[in-house]
Amino acid sequence: MKKELSLLMDLYELTMAQSYFIYKKNTFATFDLFVRGLPPNRAYLVACGLEDILDYIGNLKFTPEDLRYLSRQGLFSRDFLRYLSGFKFHGDIWAMAEGEIFFANEPVVRVTAPVIEAQLMESFLLNTINLQTMIAAKASRVVQAAGSRRVYDFSLRRTHGQDAGIKVPRSAYIAGFSGTSCVLAAKLYKIPAVGTMAHSYVMSFKQEIDSFLAYAETFPAKTILLVDTYDTKRGIKSAIKIGLYLKEKGYRLQGIRLDSGDIILLSKLARKMLDEAGLGYVKIFASGNLDEFKIKKLLARGARVDNFGVGTNMGTSIDAPCLDVIYKITEVTDENGKFLPKMKLSKAKVTYPGRKQVFRAQDKRGRFVKDILGLEKEKIKGRPLLMKVVDKGKVIYKTPALEKIRDFARLNLGRFTPALKEVIPSYKYPVIVSPGLKKLRQSLAGQLGKN
Amino acid sequence: MKKELSLLMDLYELTMAQSYFIYKKNTFATFDLFVRGLPPNRAYLVACGLEDILDYIGNLKFTPEDLRYLSRQGLFSRDFLRYLSGFKFHGDIWAMAEGEIFFANEPVVRVTAPVIEAQLMESFLLNTINLQTMIAAKASRVVQAAGSRRVYDFSLRRTHGQDAGIKVPRSAYIAGFSGTSCVLAAKLYKIPAVGTMAHSYVMSFKQEIDSFLAYAETFPAKTILLVDTYDTKRGIKSAIKIGLYLKEKGYRLQGIRLDSGDIILLSKLARKMLDEAGLGYVKIFASGNLDEFKIKKLLARGARVDNFGVGTNMGTSIDAPCLDVIYKITEVTDENGKFLPKMKLSKAKVTYPGRKQVFRAQDKRGRFVKDILGLEKEKIKGRPLLMKVVDKGKVIYKTPALEKIRDFARLNLGRFTPALKEVIPSYKYPVIVSPGLKKLRQSLAGQLGKN
Repeated sequence: MKKELSLLMDLYELTMAQSYFIYKKNTFATFDLFVRGLPPNRAYLVACGLEDILDYIGNLKFTPEDLRYLSRQGLFSRDFLRYLSGFKFHGDIWAMAEGEIFFANEPVVRVTAPVIEAQLMESFLLNTINLQTMIAAKASRVVQAAGSRRVYDFSLRRTHGQDAGIKVPRSAYIAGFSGTSCVLAAKLYKIPAVGTMAHSYVMSFKQEIDSFLAYAETFPAKTILLVDTYDTKRGIKSAIKIGLYLKEKGYRLQGIRLDSGDIILLSKLARKMLDEAGLGYVKIFASGNLDEFKIKKLLARGARVDNFGVGTNMGTSIDAPCLDVIYKITEVTDENGKFLPKMKLSKAKVTYPGRKQVFRAQDKRGRFVKDILGLEKEKIKGRPLLMKVVDKGKVIYKTPALEKIRDFARLNLGRFTPALKEVIPSYKYPVIVSPGLKKLRQSLAGQLGKN
Repeated sequence: MKKELSLLMDLYELTMAQSYFIYKKNTFATFDLFVRGLPPNRAYLVACGLEDILDYIGNLKFTPEDLRYLSRQGLFSRDFLRYLSGFKFHGDIWAMAEGEIFFANEPVVRVTAPVIEAQLMESFLLNTINLQTMIAAKASRVVQAAGSRRVYDFSLRRTHGQDAGIKVPRSAYIAGFSGTSCVLAAKLYKIPAVGTMAHSYVMSFKQEIDSFLAYAETFPAKTILLVDTYDTKRGIKSAIKIGLYLKEKGYRLQGIRLDSGDIILLSKLARKMLDEAGLGYVKIFASGNLDEFKIKKLLARGARVDNFGVGTNMGTSIDAPCLDVIYKITEVTDENGKFLPKMKLSKAKVTYPGRKQVFRAQDKRGRFVKDILGLEKEKIKGRPLLMKVVDKGKVIYKTPALEKIRDFARLNLGRFTPALKEVIPSYKYPVIVSPGLKKLRQSLAGQLGKN
């Protein structure tokens, strides 16, 4: 995080903080960040965004310029602004590793800290987890639909701004994409950078084949030709000429790309034409408004596509461009420093109180069979998914290399039943509430009702 | 733009650029950035994003680190990398002013430059216009639905990342929103910052009323109380106690906020209770999954809401989280430097060739009645919407103050028929193709067909 992002928060975090500063300087609280319900057709989510959160924690500072701005708002006392000028996070954070598979109501990040500090980071935490987890979940669906085919991210032009432009490729790569067209993301995160050519390139030449030839001469070993600018069949024929020309020179044409039209028909035709010309090694790329639904249909109907370029629909999570991600207080200390569990009791928006852990149970073959949402101190069988990543303000977790996170996500997902990973899932993974948590909830509901 | 954003581009921009560097160093081209078709229920768009584009043009540089990264890709020649190291934009850019209302197929940005330079900025231009125009269009719909009520942006927690977190409030403000909860956006763009309190704040106190009192003591002149954490009716009663307490001390409670439940019922109840208590001046805020459809319904059914807080649905443009925004080559110079018009002829994806302008015609009363998409040199009656903003690489346009852009958008939109601005629009604004452009298209289609 750059320093100038410290004010990337809702104003009420600061006004509440000032009130806490006056009334609750010594109060600690725990907040859970979780997703209330999964979007349509999602049967699981892929945790993503922790790297940015840890970066944020390590760099959160209010600059003199920030403080001057806040001072001009006529809301904040000199004392409070002085407090902000020396702000540092002192709490603990537990979180799921990036690439962890998780479900509704499971805390993915848990913050225990002075209430003022835990509150101030609400907006940033939500914003970060929302984008990256949403994209990783969507991208994972696309990867599942593509089966053994590779999928590449082409979404930069339609992602929501510059930050999404680099975070989407990272999240998609974690979820199993094989590369990105976004050079900055490729550079920052060491993701393979990929690309073909645009229609405008083809159109800038007099004849389509002139453009193919020029590109092939420039990148003889790395050419993928876009064949649908004018007439696709003619485009394939021209690509074959180039393929044969490269072959003569000892190079292999990498592929052709279909970006419009009937992909099933055209890919079969292209495969046949390429094979007959002795270019069986030339791969066929498909792109153009693809998503998991379309990819599944294409493959089911025998499309001869080797690699997919997926853009907008994944990069905006178009059918569900947000998660119902929330940050809820679950316990708060009383005047003696003792943590008391808390819950909200509005209709249809009940939350789970207390300091919790998620336990993942497996069967004898190592397959995951259910999660138990329980209290941290309960003895429950299963792997605890939340791990301590910040201890008394100090970041104690080092984000693994991106490749490792990607492997972790893949292996992790591989241990769930295939039914979870269908494009239209036929299975709901069981998340059980532990006896201890159930009891606590009931007892609190009784108290609140009487209040 | 920060320097490190120069690589925020698709890899193919760079590979094509290297090919242009070899084959088309002296070739100029014109590109149109436009939206192919409007998303469902949108009858107009609001141009937004030009400020960032001009900033980008002024700062586009490849750093030594960028060049080292590119060099490692094994794709680029030393000569080409040297060219990039001295890269500067030399072209002309014409664009619609921010706040301009526009329609499908109308160029909102037009670039004429050496083809290599025009190509390199494709991804950034598309990414920028897509986000900001999409949000301004969605936000404008929300503002229209709210009529005389004010609308505030609360979307930070669900916008797609950090950049969207500040660009969404700016775009929404241009479209008529009255403020934002995002402090960084408020600071950077001089937008009014607004906020209330969170459920967690209320829950961090023993009793709801304790939290209200603490907040009111901290901000006696600026308190808006969130009343739905436990029982909303009881929350309103507690808010009234605080309102009366503040009144005694010479302050006015600003408002209460309803964030869940039956807003129609609860707002009527709250209004009645507040009025009976002599707190007629206390405003009622509503929030919670609002959008233009819900706001229209609430108001039609008599909800007594004064101000709306709108978050996720606007900040992600949830029902249409992308625009079909594209960047198409429309002319290119031949070996003699003469511009030749170009168009794409794939099925269902035909483009308009040549260097174009958009002319807006009005009736005698000053109301806009139709646009004419024509060739720049045609003599057509109507206000030309594209203005020159970059001349031979130099930015010659100064972005007006945000308030001015906002006024321009409002006045501008006011000159269209109300039917255009309905939540479900009953009117399609006519965009006519000029005789000159029609003729050019036919002649090119003929040539391409024969090719």
